Amino acid sequence: MKILEETIQNIYPLDKDLCEQQTKVLARLLKTPDGLGKMEKISIQLAGMKKDFQIEKKAVVVMAADNGVEKEGVSASKRVITQFVVDAMARGEASVSSLSKSFGSELFVVDLGIDCEKHIEGSILKKIMKNGTCNIRHKAAMTRKQAIEAIETGITIAEDCINKGFNLFALGEMGIGNTTTSSACLKVLIDLPLDDIVGYGSGINDETLKLKKQVIQDALDVNKPNVNDPIDIIHKVGGLDIAAMTGFYLGAARYKVPVVLDGLISGIAALLAMKFNAFAKDYMIPSHLSEEPGSKYILRELGFEPALYMNMKLGEGSGAILMFPIIEASNNLSKNIRLYPELR
Amino acid sequence: MKILEETIQNIYPLDKDLCEQQTKVLARLLKTPDGLGKMEKISIQLAGMKKDFQIEKKAVVVMAADNGVEKEGVSASKRVITQFVVDAMARGEASVSSLSKSFGSELFVVDLGIDCEKHIEGSILKKIMKNGTCNIRHKAAMTRKQAIEAIETGITIAEDCINKGFNLFALGEMGIGNTTTSSACLKVLIDLPLDDIVGYGSGINDETLKLKKQVIQDALDVNKPNVNDPIDIIHKVGGLDIAAMTGFYLGAARYKVPVVLDGLISGIAALLAMKFNAFAKDYMIPSHLSEEPGSKYILRELGFEPALYMNMKLGEGSGAILMFPIIEASNNLSKNIRLYPELR
Repeated sequence: MKILEETIQNIYPLDKDLCEQQTKVLARLLKTPDGLGKMEKISIQLAGMKKDFQIEKKAVVVMAADNGVEKEGVSASKRVITQFVVDAMARGEASVSSLSKSFGSELFVVDLGIDCEKHIEGSILKKIMKNGTCNIRHKAAMTRKQAIEAIETGITIAEDCINKGFNLFALGEMGIGNTTTSSACLKVLIDLPLDDIVGYGSGINDETLKLKKQVIQDALDVNKPNVNDPIDIIHKVGGLDIAAMTGFYLGAARYKVPVVLDGLISGIAALLAMKFNAFAKDYMIPSHLSEEPGSKYILRELGFEPALYMNMKLGEGSGAILMFPIIEASNNLSKNIRLYPELR
Repeated sequence: MKILEETIQNIYPLDKDLCEQQTKVLARLLKTPDGLGKMEKISIQLAGMKKDFQIEKKAVVVMAADNGVEKEGVSASKRVITQFVVDAMARGEASVSSLSKSFGSELFVVDLGIDCEKHIEGSILKKIMKNGTCNIRHKAAMTRKQAIEAIETGITIAEDCINKGFNLFALGEMGIGNTTTSSACLKVLIDLPLDDIVGYGSGINDETLKLKKQVIQDALDVNKPNVNDPIDIIHKVGGLDIAAMTGFYLGAARYKVPVVLDGLISGIAALLAMKFNAFAKDYMIPSHLSEEPGSKYILRELGFEPALYMNMKLGEGSGAILMFPIIEASNNLSKNIRLYPELR
């Protein structure tokens, strides 16, 4: 609890003066006023994190764990796919690995509780629960203590990465069943009808979708999470991936380093992080609108307008990473463009 | 006319077999089915252009010219800004130059009729009209012969670039007054109220917007362009930039090379190119939805859903170039991702 408390006490907003300075710099450049739209916003946001922010090294960080609720048959994929995909990530053969290569980024995948005896070579071993979480349909996903431990693991991983010189992150996840746990968290955080916010996840059919909604409703009825207590939400209906992602946002915000949001699960963790300290948002950058129906409500709640509409629904950080070149280009704008001449 | 005719007779659709092959390849990869959304579509489109399409060199091509209609005071920028920005482009100091650097692309800027005596060093000199077009409010922008010449210049430039090894293009423009000429073309091509399709361009005020609409209406009344004849539209209410961009799309399509659309003006040229040969569309890739209100109607008419919503309104190819890394990553997908295991 000490790491978490210390972290949330040390998250501050962007430096307003630096933001204003950058706004003025951009206004003088040879272009239509505000002509570069969201790129200018990103440029100002980065400027407010640190004077002369330079992007050094980029990483996709994937939080991976199994979810007990998978046993209810809420996913089109079998549980073993979690470890299979994580193994592929560790060997550079997953979907996000391909993107990571294309975008000149590193990939770190963290095992927070994959249901797998052996250490998946190349993954970062930080198991909080050996075989993944409990089935939220019947009981809490994890203990409160484990929830805190998983959040703090996320904080520590952010710190470790930042210490290694990484200062631009995409935050992804892997864990069969995690659109179910995320949707449960979403229902607690934004009380909309399950029909509006629960989606097809890994590609389930309509019958399974119906079951998925029932399972979520049962999980909420059994566990009764407290909307005002993010630890309670994570501990009761969350997942180890969600917990660690929440911590990662907090850890990065503490060190004033930007993290790009991915889809549904990454968005839920962002909302949870803001429950701990609302200024965590200042260090988040939205990416795409995922096909999962809950995503648009999360982005609205966060006050974010995504830049990308890619019809993606993959997770793993795959949508977030697409923002890397746009963010880098945004950060370079004021270094390369001539001033507007004095004749307007 | 020979170059244009020969080009439009030699534009063919994507290879269906190659597209189907790639669709099957993507379906077997370790990911949610269709999980990468528009990236998968781009991957299939590129596969259909050429077997094992490899992106070699990328370029932003900017068609630049002055517009007689600028004299009506329809822009917030003075005419001299055209040459100033083109000079900045040629020296790597314009907005799009900054992006081009960030994205590892080359930039070519073509002078089709900038109102400037000297050759702007570093620009490609292809002047069709020495001081830009005539004022469309009172007469045709150019002769029919000049329109054809400008289109054919665009074709030739595409050919030249392709011969130099470039095989991914972003197509931009520069020319004060060109949202007025483009909106006039748009009104001919898609008959919607001017109130819906005419926008603030370079950042004009409401009064100037009103004037801009009147000028466009006058131009259409005076010139009466024929909606079924793209040359007539360009010759009467278009611009040399629009003409050359139209030709560029056709030239690239002939050689099965993809071109990324930018905003309003680039979109109008794409619609005009499709009037010559509808298969030209197979080699176009949309990028962003510009802030100019006409853009959404153009994209709808083209049948394109843009990937990027950046609130940009700059032109120069600045929105198009943002797609380069996404297109490159899309083209690499099938090379790097493990197959889905046999256990689903």
